[in-house]
Amino acid sequence: MAAPSPSTLTASLMAAKKAKGLSFADLEVALGLDEVWIASLFYGQATASPEEAEKLATLLGLDPAITAALQEFPTKGSLDPVIPTDPLIYRFYEIMQVYGMPLKDVIQEKFGDGIMSAIDFTLDVDKVEDPKGDRVKVTMCGKFLPYKKW
Amino acid sequence: MAAPSPSTLTASLMAAKKAKGLSFADLEVALGLDEVWIASLFYGQATASPEEAEKLATLLGLDPAITAALQEFPTKGSLDPVIPTDPLIYRFYEIMQVYGMPLKDVIQEKFGDGIMSAIDFTLDVDKVEDPKGDRVKVTMCGKFLPYKKW
Amino acid sequence: MAAPSPSTLTASLMAAKKAKGLSFADLEVALGLDEVWIASLFYGQATASPEEAEKLATLLGLDPAITAALQEFPTKGSLDPVIPTDPLIYRFYEIMQVYGMPLKDVIQEKFGDGIMSAIDFTLDVDKVEDPKGDRVKVTMCGKFLPYKKW
Amino acid sequence: MAAPSPSTLTASLMAAKKAKGLSFADLEVALGLDEVWIASLFYGQATASPEEAEKLATLLGLDPAITAALQEFPTKGSLDPVIPTDPLIYRFYEIMQVYGMPLKDVIQEKFGDGIMSAIDFTLDVDKVEDPKGDRVKVTMCGKFLPYKKW
Amino acid sequence: MAAPSPSTLTASLMAAKKAKGLSFADLEVALGLDEVWIASLFYGQATASPEEAEKLATLLGLDPAITAALQEFPTKGSLDPVIPTDPLIYRFYEIMQVYGMPLKDVIQEKFGDGIMSAIDFTLDVDKVEDPKGDRVKVTMCGKFLPYKKW
Amino acid sequence: MAAPSPSTLTASLMAAKKAKGLSFADLEVALGLDEVWIASLFYGQATASPEEAEKLATLLGLDPAITAALQEFPTKGSLDPVIPTDPLIYRFYEIMQVYGMPLKDVIQEKFGDGIMSAIDFTLDVDKVEDPKGDRVKVTMCGKFLPYKKW
Amino acid sequence: MAAPSPSTLTASLMAAKKAKGLSFADLEVALGLDEVWIASLFYGQATASPEEAEKLATLLGLDPAITAALQEFPTKGSLDPVIPTDPLIYRFYEIMQVYGMPLKDVIQEKFGDGIMSAIDFTLDVDKVEDPKGDRVKVTMCGKFLPYKKW
Amino acid sequence: MAAPSPSTLTASLMAAKKAKGLSFADLEVALGLDEVWIASLFYGQATASPEEAEKLATLLGLDPAITAALQEFPTKGSLDPVIPTDPLIYRFYEIMQVYGMPLKDVIQEKFGDGIMSAIDFTLDVDKVEDPKGDRVKVTMCGKFLPYKKW
Amino acid sequence: MAAPSPSTLTASLMAAKKAKGLSFADLEVALGLDEVWIASLFYGQATASPEEAEKLATLLGLDPAITAALQEFPTKGSLDPVIPTDPLIYRFYEIMQVYGMPLKDVIQEKFGDGIMSAIDFTLDVDKVEDPKGDRVKVTMCGKFLPYKKW
Amino acid sequence: MAAPSPSTLTASLMAAKKAKGLSFADLEVALGLDEVWIASLFYGQATASPEEAEKLATLLGLDPAITAALQEFPTKGSLDPVIPTDPLIYRFYEIMQVYGMPLKDVIQEKFGDGIMSAIDFTLDVDKVEDPKGDRVKVTMCGKFLPYKKW
Repeated sequence: MAAPSPSTLTASLMAAKKAKGLSFADLEVALGLDEVWIASLFYGQATASPEEAEKLATLLGLDPAITAALQEFPTKGSLDPVIPTDPLIYRFYEIMQVYGMPLKDVIQEKFGDGIMSAIDFTLDVDKVEDPKGDRVKVTMCGKFLPYKKW
Repeated sequence: MAAPSPSTLTASLMAAKKAKGLSFADLEVALGLDEVWIASLFYGQATASPEEAEKLATLLGLDPAITAALQEFPTKGSLDPVIPTDPLIYRFYEIMQVYGMPLKDVIQEKFGDGIMSAIDFTLDVDKVEDPKGDRVKVTMCGKFLPYKKW
Repeated sequence: MAAPSPSTLTASLMAAKKAKGLSFADLEVALGLDEVWIASLFYGQATASPEEAEKLATLLGLDPAITAALQEFPTKGSLDPVIPTDPLIYRFYEIMQVYGMPLKDVIQEKFGDGIMSAIDFTLDVDKVEDPKGDRVKVTMCGKFLPYKKW
Repeated sequence: MAAPSPSTLTASLMAAKKAKGLSFADLEVALGLDEVWIASLFYGQATASPEEAEKLATLLGLDPAITAALQEFPTKGSLDPVIPTDPLIYRFYEIMQVYGMPLKDVIQEKFGDGIMSAIDFTLDVDKVEDPKGDRVKVTMCGKFLPYKKW
Repeated sequence: MAAPSPSTLTASLMAAKKAKGLSFADLEVALGLDEVWIASLFYGQATASPEEAEKLATLLGLDPAITAALQEFPTKGSLDPVIPTDPLIYRFYEIMQVYGMPLKDVIQEKFGDGIMSAIDFTLDVDKVEDPKGDRVKVTMCGKFLPYKKW
Repeated sequence: MAAPSPSTLTASLMAAKKAKGLSFADLEVALGLDEVWIASLFYGQATASPEEAEKLATLLGLDPAITAALQEFPTKGSLDPVIPTDPLIYRFYEIMQVYGMPLKDVIQEKFGDGIMSAIDFTLDVDKVEDPKGDRVKVTMCGKFLPYKKW
Repeated sequence: MAAPSPSTLTASLMAAKKAKGLSFADLEVALGLDEVWIASLFYGQATASPEEAEKLATLLGLDPAITAALQEFPTKGSLDPVIPTDPLIYRFYEIMQVYGMPLKDVIQEKFGDGIMSAIDFTLDVDKVEDPKGDRVKVTMCGKFLPYKKW
Repeated sequence: MAAPSPSTLTASLMAAKKAKGLSFADLEVALGLDEVWIASLFYGQATASPEEAEKLATLLGLDPAITAALQEFPTKGSLDPVIPTDPLIYRFYEIMQVYGMPLKDVIQEKFGDGIMSAIDFTLDVDKVEDPKGDRVKVTMCGKFLPYKKW
Repeated sequence: MAAPSPSTLTASLMAAKKAKGLSFADLEVALGLDEVWIASLFYGQATASPEEAEKLATLLGLDPAITAALQEFPTKGSLDPVIPTDPLIYRFYEIMQVYGMPLKDVIQEKFGDGIMSAIDFTLDVDKVEDPKGDRVKVTMCGKFLPYKKW
Repeated sequence: MAAPSPSTLTASLMAAKKAKGLSFADLEVALGLDEVWIASLFYGQATASPEEAEKLATLLGLDPAITAALQEFPTKGSLDPVIPTDPLIYRFYEIMQVYGMPLKDVIQEKFGDGIMSAIDFTLDVDKVEDPKGDRVKVTMCGKFLPYKKW
């Protein structure tokens, strides 16, 4: 597309955020949207409304081509479709390796045959302070979708 | 190993649980351990202490070879190391595709360079009732491990 | 699981259907459910209610272990997760290769950022008679799910 | 080739369409060809006749090199030949995973040994309004080709 | 399927043919069908009519389950879907590596945008005697299918 | 190499041929070499002698660097070494999937243990006119090479 | 095939050779064929004549089904078509990684555009005694095949 | 690295060698090192001493950055780590497929458990003239390394 | 091979060791060989001398077929040649991902162009007690092998 | 990112180090951090504190953009996520192939179910002088992390 490519878009947004000295948590307060969702917009994984794009453009001093690109429907996927090498991201793959089938059984025992939606879905990150070492808490919450019969 | 193979172990435990008419939630109450952890023990992904293995053996009427096998240190991994085809499990891979890099940035902005442990780690599943359709809530909580320098 | 394995289940159901001389179209009439959905139950991709399982058991003279297995929540995926070699199935992959991005653009131009559900979804096959050669008509219909923001 | 590369061609066409404020549905009306087929031409998956290329050039104000390139026979394939990461496109792969073998059996029960052509083939997208949420309807229609013996 | 598996079917047919001392060329004469097509039936890649299956059963003294299986619609693909290791078969992949794009250009220059059908298709093998070493001649002939527009 | 890269070479040759309005069939007549072989030279899969390179340079008005490059020994392979996505080329892979093992058996029944050479080898394309639709005829002819013992 | 499978064939031949206390070097003397070729026959990669099969049957006390199987034309390939894990075999892949392109250039500088045949080919292993550690000498010798033009 | 990249290095060396009209055999004489080793230096697979780099720089009129780069320790591997498509190089992979396990057995029968070194290793190419067609002789010679116990 | 397969061998040795209540550390004392090397023998990755095999047979009460199999030269590789899913083993792959290139540079800065042998090599595991949590110390020690020139 | 890309960062640091004539061992002395850790910082695998970045900038005369980039949290992974082709690095993969399962068993026999951390982890390289050839000693030391139950 003649619009900026996804990685150019990400780089420009990251550079503008860094120049303004803002964290994603600061953007959460300023925009009234969750920091993880805002980060996913920065990585070309979500679509802003015209108002949201404008507000962000004003906050970060964005170029109009960037502001327009934030309103496109992106081709999603922020990782190469292989096992990721970054240790922080890999741990989530390992969690699915070790706990994937157990998780499926427990969800289906509670809800029946169906899935947790990854579209009607939210994701939050919290810091849990702990004297033995702080803990990362990741909360995923999606609508249960039962399989339709016809 | 002359011990039962992982898939035989899983099949025997699942059949015994079904015969007793117990859910993983019932086992959570009876054993005082979380239902997801118990399911991961059934899939050969975790190790029971002798007391835990005995308590489970009594509850489910297990054969001594199964009881012994629950105390071994398993070679972990409950999925083929490829993209899974089951839609419930696939959605968690899709979540990492769409939200993986945003999640990494938000965690590291809050904690610094390091990872969320997948070993000193817990995983819970809850049902959130909602008139527009119930929601699945998955909570992951792991110790933050900062990178060591030397 | 101590229940019949997916391929044993498929083989037993196919053999019973053949022995009774029934087509999937006959089963559609007898059960009041679509022939494609019934075929997907035969391949271990869907779950029957107790009444549906009983009705099918009576029609095909099934063994009680098979009848019970039809009510389990299967680990789905009827193909190896690679490019299929069978020409009939491969053509659907080719359609996505050639028309996948065009399809994405047209759907999102009509509906916005989101997806067609593959869970709240139906699939029908019809024969369209044509003097130049009959045509296969495949109709897929799924709920549109818009991406949630939070 | 000294002709524009497929991704340059797509980007130029998309930018011209956006600049004129036209949707694929508008182009369907203007050209008398289906919107999905036109989108497939934009992605370098189909070939225009000289008249079709001219009409499109006039509508979008295209450069002559682009107009010429629309008449070439492209090397087809709009996706990397791996499992796609975009959720909208992935769902069609999941549909084949879950319903591929059932679909094969139902088609062959109706038509005999052969395939649905992906060449003598059309693909349409419709919006089905529904108070519980609009639905996406995708209709594929291809000539049945029976296997030849010799 | 309760029918013999494809590799059992192949093994039984090969053993019966060997026991009768017949070559595929002998079967070509006896059945009035090409030796390559008959070999593809042996490998579970084609479907016999009831008369063809009966004639072959009589010639080779086949068991009725085998005779029935020859009339099923097989899931096709006689190789693992990877690069084959057998040198005779690999050479055909190498031919496509070296001559694939040239072949595409020459076919499309002669016929327009479309493909050679692999369904309405025949394949013959001949021996060309030559004093400098005999040559293998492989002739493929398929209907040209032009891309449809809609 | 400081010589033009294979894709630059192909692009320059294709552009020159198009500018002169010549088909590969015209080049076959002008050069006295088969159109498929000439197309393989254009794709960097074959080597021209100095005389052949000169003749082609004169016909197409080539730059001396291109003329020199046609005489190098190329690193061969015109496709990525994966399953190709282009439908015309894919059909040849499908032919090997469906007819590969049958072809091996028929060739070896006629010739013994060995292979058809892909080096001492020719490939021709013909159009077979047919009222029910023209047919593509592809003829491959290679020397039989028996396995040596030592 | 109803004949022994390749791995059964290899296992039976290896067990018979071990029971007789013979090395491949002893078989080289007894049969008048090279030890590497004989080992390749044991691994189902080569075909024996009736006389060779008989001589080997007598030497090793083979069962007639094994003797017959040695005369079949095998589907070749003694490794999984992936990078091998065994260190001795891996080194030959590493040699091609490090010296493959240099080897191609030197061979083609000496011989022109073509290849070394792997069919009209011999392979020998010798021990070169050396006070600093004995050396393995592997000699490969194949007919040069020039590319044909047509 | 700020040094020339491996492919730039290769291209510059090849262009310089061509401009001087030298073959690798000529360089073997001039430098007193084997032509295969010199070709491997050209492909960034080996390291020159300062004297060797200087001598080559003088012979080929190299730029000082190239001369310096020849003395670096390269990251080795001259092929993509997949099955190569070039027919000359592929034949060496085929040789390992067909003769790999036989070669392992014969080497270990002669030397015990261990490997042929690919580091303390030489590789030579010779032309063997033969009236039935010249032959390529490739000789590999590496130190035998026995597995250590501890 | 008619000898026990590698996984049967491992299972039998593990069961015998467990029945005798011995750890690998106990076997280290009894046999005078390192516990890691002994474990590698159990996994079919190393070869015992006749004396070592006998001593182990006596200690564990092994069957003669097992004792003989310990003296064979195994086809090595204890993992599938893919990224392992077991978290303990995966960490060593992650170490190479993160520290592989740094390690290469530091080793070559100290030693020149060459490698650390994995054949003339030892591997030890120690427990380092630490009040903040015990540490695993893994020491690898291999002969440096410089690249040979010729 | 608008910051230098990882490979540009590595190239600039390597060129600056070379221009100053410093080894990683010299940097170890100057910075009071291990040479392997410093090399991992050069490869974009670790994060410097502002003081460490400043000290390095002064030593090597770095540009401020480089100095800033050293303080970012990198996306880690210094190799393509495939089997590496470089012989020095490959040997570490081979060590895991041959000794991976033995290592797992010995570690777990000593420590219980858990892993060696690759985050709270150090890695050292030493040269062990030996008259039969110097040896490379690599010492890895990581905290043992036991699996948590919940």
